[in-house]
Amino acid sequence: MNQDITEKLQEIFDADTGIYQQRGFQRRVGFGSRPALINIDLANAWTRPGNPFTCDGMDTIIPATQDLLAASRAKGIPVVYTSTAYEQPTGPNSDTGLWHLKIPVEVLKVGTEAVAIDDRVAPLEGEQVIIKKRASGFHGTHLASFLNAHKVDTVIVTGVTMAGCVRHTVEDAIAEGFRPIVVREAVGDRVPGVVEWNLFDIDAKFGDVEPLERVLSYLESIEHFGVENVAGSSGS
Amino acid sequence: MNQDITEKLQEIFDADTGIYQQRGFQRRVGFGSRPALINIDLANAWTRPGNPFTCDGMDTIIPATQDLLAASRAKGIPVVYTSTAYEQPTGPNSDTGLWHLKIPVEVLKVGTEAVAIDDRVAPLEGEQVIIKKRASGFHGTHLASFLNAHKVDTVIVTGVTMAGCVRHTVEDAIAEGFRPIVVREAVGDRVPGVVEWNLFDIDAKFGDVEPLERVLSYLESIEHFGVENVAGSSGS
Amino acid sequence: MNQDITEKLQEIFDADTGIYQQRGFQRRVGFGSRPALINIDLANAWTRPGNPFTCDGMDTIIPATQDLLAASRAKGIPVVYTSTAYEQPTGPNSDTGLWHLKIPVEVLKVGTEAVAIDDRVAPLEGEQVIIKKRASGFHGTHLASFLNAHKVDTVIVTGVTMAGCVRHTVEDAIAEGFRPIVVREAVGDRVPGVVEWNLFDIDAKFGDVEPLERVLSYLESIEHFGVENVAGSSGS
Amino acid sequence: MNQDITEKLQEIFDADTGIYQQRGFQRRVGFGSRPALINIDLANAWTRPGNPFTCDGMDTIIPATQDLLAASRAKGIPVVYTSTAYEQPTGPNSDTGLWHLKIPVEVLKVGTEAVAIDDRVAPLEGEQVIIKKRASGFHGTHLASFLNAHKVDTVIVTGVTMAGCVRHTVEDAIAEGFRPIVVREAVGDRVPGVVEWNLFDIDAKFGDVEPLERVLSYLESIEHFGVENVAGSSGS
Repeated sequence: MNQDITEKLQEIFDADTGIYQQRGFQRRVGFGSRPALINIDLANAWTRPGNPFTCDGMDTIIPATQDLLAASRAKGIPVVYTSTAYEQPTGPNSDTGLWHLKIPVEVLKVGTEAVAIDDRVAPLEGEQVIIKKRASGFHGTHLASFLNAHKVDTVIVTGVTMAGCVRHTVEDAIAEGFRPIVVREAVGDRVPGVVEWNLFDIDAKFGDVEPLERVLSYLESIEHFGVENVAGSSGS
Repeated sequence: MNQDITEKLQEIFDADTGIYQQRGFQRRVGFGSRPALINIDLANAWTRPGNPFTCDGMDTIIPATQDLLAASRAKGIPVVYTSTAYEQPTGPNSDTGLWHLKIPVEVLKVGTEAVAIDDRVAPLEGEQVIIKKRASGFHGTHLASFLNAHKVDTVIVTGVTMAGCVRHTVEDAIAEGFRPIVVREAVGDRVPGVVEWNLFDIDAKFGDVEPLERVLSYLESIEHFGVENVAGSSGS
Repeated sequence: MNQDITEKLQEIFDADTGIYQQRGFQRRVGFGSRPALINIDLANAWTRPGNPFTCDGMDTIIPATQDLLAASRAKGIPVVYTSTAYEQPTGPNSDTGLWHLKIPVEVLKVGTEAVAIDDRVAPLEGEQVIIKKRASGFHGTHLASFLNAHKVDTVIVTGVTMAGCVRHTVEDAIAEGFRPIVVREAVGDRVPGVVEWNLFDIDAKFGDVEPLERVLSYLESIEHFGVENVAGSSGS
Repeated sequence: MNQDITEKLQEIFDADTGIYQQRGFQRRVGFGSRPALINIDLANAWTRPGNPFTCDGMDTIIPATQDLLAASRAKGIPVVYTSTAYEQPTGPNSDTGLWHLKIPVEVLKVGTEAVAIDDRVAPLEGEQVIIKKRASGFHGTHLASFLNAHKVDTVIVTGVTMAGCVRHTVEDAIAEGFRPIVVREAVGDRVPGVVEWNLFDIDAKFGDVEPLERVLSYLESIEHFGVENVAGSSGS
């Protein structure tokens, strides 16, 4: 069925692309010079079987992310992970906001194995793991000011899900002033079609969807990430 | 072709719905008791022919919005419009951020007829027209604090485009703690397919997609919007 | 010296009050009907001796906060704590932003006893302890959307420091649409004078400074905090 | 009386400085390499006599700001103005939030001469004039993402009032990741003492308070502000 869906959707995308091109959409945001790697919700609830949040495609997503992690760390760029987790599903101290009214966030408990980052793509000591409460990695977190303080200009995005947290993060990223680059092989979801149509929308309006190989070449080409005179340095 | 596309997409949606239902997604956020009406980018650049941003479907969207405006004003709820417009397309004072690198925002100039709200759905004196710079009506605007100060709990959303500003606004709305209700007949876009798949994603994860008739019945059923003891009142 | 300072400052405040009153400042924001208690940085680094962040006045602040906690929990209102803590003081993954360039935030490490809430005012299971990176409890956190989802209209603020985190939190609170009530006996700082002048500025422009007794009476007077039809309930 | 107040306050500041220095506060945030000039509320309601918002010290503030404008424009850096203004003081569409409950914002109407920038420091065509609804220039505005998209690292702040909008803007600036530089001669307020104590607090914790001459020297020393590869450029 996937093959069939892909073909059907491609037919629509081709028609849409004709209109977008004529209207001046689908431009390239391009790569900047100070990237960060942002890994969205690559925690066990999403990357392993048996959870309502389990996603497909980990055979591709995990190795692609491993490659990106290695290339990013080689250049010393900021590496950020997000996970989504809650202290309290109900009552006056509940931190789920209204989201439990739409999706089963009540299974995502702070401090459990389910919301820990998958150890195949584990963070190194000191890399930020941001526990977010909403879809976007930017919403209600210090991500924007973290990136801004480091004068990051480009965010390379991996993870899941395309129809949820990855898309909202990418929309917020360009809104905040960062160039979003979504790595085709490193993103996924849990139902057919949504990866394709969300990548299509993003590439038309919010960020560039690029193959892994091109992103790795870019990372190889940049200078090592210096912190002189910015956040993390020892003075002015 | 639209008929064909709709059928193809419906087939995908049906398969996806099976998975979502089994997993506990696609819940109902439901209507609250203090709604506001948020009309996204129903300005001439989007509602009239001849602009890169021109959208389809105004024969349905405009009358649906007119009905919602009448019902909303009858109950005295907050009515908000957004438009997207810029002072300066290039240079160190440019307010387009990075968005001009993806889409043709350079045609949207502050103060021009193109970015004025379509007079078929014109705001009344005092209704907020928020000039935003990014896709979401919440990003970089006073919309969240405006709604919060009025203790609004539900946002009824109309306008364009589904793949851009409407979707990002809805994602932000639930993140901020407002119940998003998207009115099926009152939203649109400019290329085939994107209305359908974005409504599908939203209904699965971020807000409820409801027919006009149901939203009008809801508005008829609520109490008149009081401002005692909240923003806009004369004291504590 | 404190007595002397207080007198000198009072003389200035009296002169200023004459002008503010004539101009229509120093109004009362008043109490709403759905409060939350927000305890700012009552962690050991601030409440116990021997840290660069150690504050004065805990003989008053701790018992006042204990009274407020009891009264708040009796009515089932949301109780929130903040602490300020960092994963990484330097390098490309540093989360201190630029703040280490002004103040010694490098001593505040995530997971240490120093940044844990003082056990004399310990949170109950499920009460939110928000780890913030900046002065305001709202900046880069889910506090605003947490309060908004619960339809809170009033924030009762305790903690330290008046010249830093408490003041910034109060400014943000009214900006977001919450009525800030600062409890006179429950706030403090580490150098003379700054409590007085920051309370003066706040009461003139951003929130009401109220004595503990009055706030306790208010809490006694309100209805138990219900969660029907809002965040934390089981559905619409 | 001003002389007397200044002396009394200086005595307190000296005592506080002893403690702060010992504790490691009052560090220098320093100048970065890509500044912007942010002029807070230098509109007629604040700069001219006869308004509840009228401030003192314009004999110094206006010429200092004129010097900063000239130096900033010579280097082509972003120049931003804010003003505070409202569409609607009361009712369900009021945009004053809760602030009218504390201060007389009802006199600040959008589109009136009172909220227009003082023509002695008038913006040039294309320079951003941000109409804000709250104290901070960042709250509910596109200021952070505007600065971020231009990769600004330093904000030079002028205007009024020290106890309100200037202070809140500076606190938000460092929180967002920008180095705040407050120009001593270019800021003011309307009641005695508050300029001094707010500058003291800011210099201790949030930004550097610098004399005009030093800021002008800095502006003379920097390179012309390029926009290659950032917001406002024509491509990737």
